[in-house]
Amino acid sequence: MARVLRVAGAQMGGTQKADSRPHTLARMLALLEQAARAGARLVVFPELAFTTFFPRWFVPDPRELDGYFERAMPNPNVQPLFDRARALGVGFYVGYAELTPEGRRFNTAILVAPDGALIGKYRKIHLPGSVEPREGARFQQLEKRYFEYGDLGFPTFRAPASLVGGVLGMLVCNDRRWPEGWRVLGLRGVELVCVGYNSAAYDPNGGETEDSGLRTFHSQLAAQSNAYMNATWAVAVAKAGDEDGSGLIGGSCIVDPNGRIVAEAKTLGDEVIVADCDLDACRQGKEKMFNFAAHRRPHWYGPIVSQVGATPPEA
Amino acid sequence: MARVLRVAGAQMGGTQKADSRPHTLARMLALLEQAARAGARLVVFPELAFTTFFPRWFVPDPRELDGYFERAMPNPNVQPLFDRARALGVGFYVGYAELTPEGRRFNTAILVAPDGALIGKYRKIHLPGSVEPREGARFQQLEKRYFEYGDLGFPTFRAPASLVGGVLGMLVCNDRRWPEGWRVLGLRGVELVCVGYNSAAYDPNGGETEDSGLRTFHSQLAAQSNAYMNATWAVAVAKAGDEDGSGLIGGSCIVDPNGRIVAEAKTLGDEVIVADCDLDACRQGKEKMFNFAAHRRPHWYGPIVSQVGATPPEA
Repeated sequence: MARVLRVAGAQMGGTQKADSRPHTLARMLALLEQAARAGARLVVFPELAFTTFFPRWFVPDPRELDGYFERAMPNPNVQPLFDRARALGVGFYVGYAELTPEGRRFNTAILVAPDGALIGKYRKIHLPGSVEPREGARFQQLEKRYFEYGDLGFPTFRAPASLVGGVLGMLVCNDRRWPEGWRVLGLRGVELVCVGYNSAAYDPNGGETEDSGLRTFHSQLAAQSNAYMNATWAVAVAKAGDEDGSGLIGGSCIVDPNGRIVAEAKTLGDEVIVADCDLDACRQGKEKMFNFAAHRRPHWYGPIVSQVGATPPEA
Repeated sequence: MARVLRVAGAQMGGTQKADSRPHTLARMLALLEQAARAGARLVVFPELAFTTFFPRWFVPDPRELDGYFERAMPNPNVQPLFDRARALGVGFYVGYAELTPEGRRFNTAILVAPDGALIGKYRKIHLPGSVEPREGARFQQLEKRYFEYGDLGFPTFRAPASLVGGVLGMLVCNDRRWPEGWRVLGLRGVELVCVGYNSAAYDPNGGETEDSGLRTFHSQLAAQSNAYMNATWAVAVAKAGDEDGSGLIGGSCIVDPNGRIVAEAKTLGDEVIVADCDLDACRQGKEKMFNFAAHRRPHWYGPIVSQVGATPPEA
């Protein structure tokens, strides 16, 4: 019997600094309702979905900074999303800034089951950006300042029967460009990877680098290839469009285990994409081309763990 | 000063079992001449370029099997290719079946400099197929029977000034689908990866699996994404078309460090593709998005080397 899970990606348009929490949550609830009406059993929201992408600013005031973080999950600010999802019988992935009781900060994502139970938590490992602000720059990328590196590894989770018992994994944003994270999920049998992201559409400080078309291509290429090479479905979901003068790419997509895009966002705004994901379609790849037990040769992979940076041969 | 290397891919059409060695070598010489006329300084030939893809047959006669192997490189059968390349001042990558003086067998590739010097050797690590023949099947995939796993790791080599001092790496065929090999090359500073392949266009035994369009997509997706994620150029070159009733995909391509295809074969026959590869175009990726020293987190990559097969969570 095919294990078909109807999955939605809930792409969000930009969230401005001045937007209230209830305003943003109302948008998320509308996307959730739309996905549920389309029959989705699992809805994937973006990274840091409840707020604007605040690491683009240097925020010296700790109280202002704390306003972007969640001290518990759920909490009163987000409870309506949890309540409505449970009422609709829909599970979800959502990214948020986590502030632990011990005062530790992570760029986190959780998977919640249709009955409201927590399936699992992931804390972003591949933090981009820098610790120190770039002097004189209008926009920063300060994830390395505001978050600790994730400390939970790359776990997979067996979903409940309401999500056809799938093996689910999570990544956050920049993680999707690093094949190591995908491979660890693959080695743990992943069948569906959820990944939310906020990715700059251009250099917000006016430098001449990749344009938004190329950046969207990169984003999809990473999701497609790593899905293929690990014989898994992937759902990659953007926060897109303009946030206070800084642009984010869209390109949210659902990718099959052959690396093909089967659903794709057409806008840079709030938009739901849906696909039926037959988790048994992973078997062909996992048993043949990417039968890890038969074909991997870890003896020669040592440098992947024994060194961090690149060491080219001498000139 | 930009370090621009004009590179050619010399795709080959099918080579039949009955084709003579001189006949096949004459085709390779014609491709070499064409590439040199187009100004290429480095020409990439396919995997097992001097013969048909013999692992598709169970060959019980050791003398017949040995006829597909090279006991030295160069040797009189292939010497004209080496001589002509040196006369033209063109370097090349070529794949061949290697039989060592000790009787060991590998699926090997070498890089030869424009002056005829050996730059480096690589022995295929990701051998597909099986040791034992599939009973009753018209076509086999017996690479695991005919070859040992490569024993040289994934080295990179500093090319001479005649090849603009580039950092070169090699893969063979199925290796290109495994991000681990690419990543080790990336950790060794690779700027141009050469990979020859023979990849089935369909199940030659008539099973219903991926069609040739999907298989070509897979091949290009793997080259494109791994080039992007390691900020390197890649040249992926097929032996294509029909070989004694078994079909091989084409899709030879040259890929830039952004993962974009900049040159692509249009046929399934002998065909030269050419592109100017500015090796300094790797710097943007290597210094920013894929600055390994700044962003990799090997502490969490352990399962990549500590386990071989997949271990899903319990159902």
